[in-house]
Amino acid sequence: MEIAFEEAKKAQERDEVPIGAVLVLDGMVIARAGNRTRELADPTAHAEMLVISQAARELGRERLDGADLYVTLEPCTMCAAAISFARLRRLYFAASDDKGGAVTSGVRFFHSPTCHHVPEVYSGLRETEARSLLRDFFQQKRG
Amino acid sequence: MEIAFEEAKKAQERDEVPIGAVLVLDGMVIARAGNRTRELADPTAHAEMLVISQAARELGRERLDGADLYVTLEPCTMCAAAISFARLRRLYFAASDDKGGAVTSGVRFFHSPTCHHVPEVYSGLRETEARSLLRDFFQQKRG
Repeated sequence: MEIAFEEAKKAQERDEVPIGAVLVLDGMVIARAGNRTRELADPTAHAEMLVISQAARELGRERLDGADLYVTLEPCTMCAAAISFARLRRLYFAASDDKGGAVTSGVRFFHSPTCHHVPEVYSGLRETEARSLLRDFFQQKRG
Repeated sequence: MEIAFEEAKKAQERDEVPIGAVLVLDGMVIARAGNRTRELADPTAHAEMLVISQAARELGRERLDGADLYVTLEPCTMCAAAISFARLRRLYFAASDDKGGAVTSGVRFFHSPTCHHVPEVYSGLRETEARSLLRDFFQQKRG
């Protein structure tokens, strides 16, 4: 999760919403990224999408069985579905997201009959820190 | 929708699940793509994601207000959320998808309180043709 936070902070330095993700397979980091929606002018360029896409393309396979994702915020509906499609083993997230999340909030995708692979989910790691990072960013934006 | 079907057939020729999409803005085609999940070894490379990402990057903006998406199959959960994030105006889809769809099936994302932009939705255009294309593809795979 430390690396996910590093990526979130790097995203903030690029004036992106500070969210970071890292993908780990067999104890090795296989992809890491922060949010890049502004930089790439791409609404799909969330940290989770970037690491899944990057790792899958590099490994040459659509399914990342056995891989674990660490992300600083609860994944949204788009990213939750991508996590399922990529067959990730475990999802660890820091802060929950009532407004846009889709794991323990919103559509709770992993509980839907249209979700055909469910990862193990662990939440609440360094939650306060993740929440502060986002709150400070948006306060600064408004300020 | 004719172009979306052309892209679906081109996807089939590449041995991809035959789904195609096209994005139209002010009467102009701004992006067109078929499914490329196998070719790119990327579980996120659905036709809808590819056209949204491509159009947004080329136009240099995350939000594609006023753009309309035509796709041969009901968008999945990932793509429905991306459609909302991209602020598309209208979504036209051919066949519905009970197993994986997220518009009129599954999580029905546009009806969720965590969906913050809802496109107009039109479905059932050339539904039989889209359904045949997919059925024939999977029958051939099994055969």
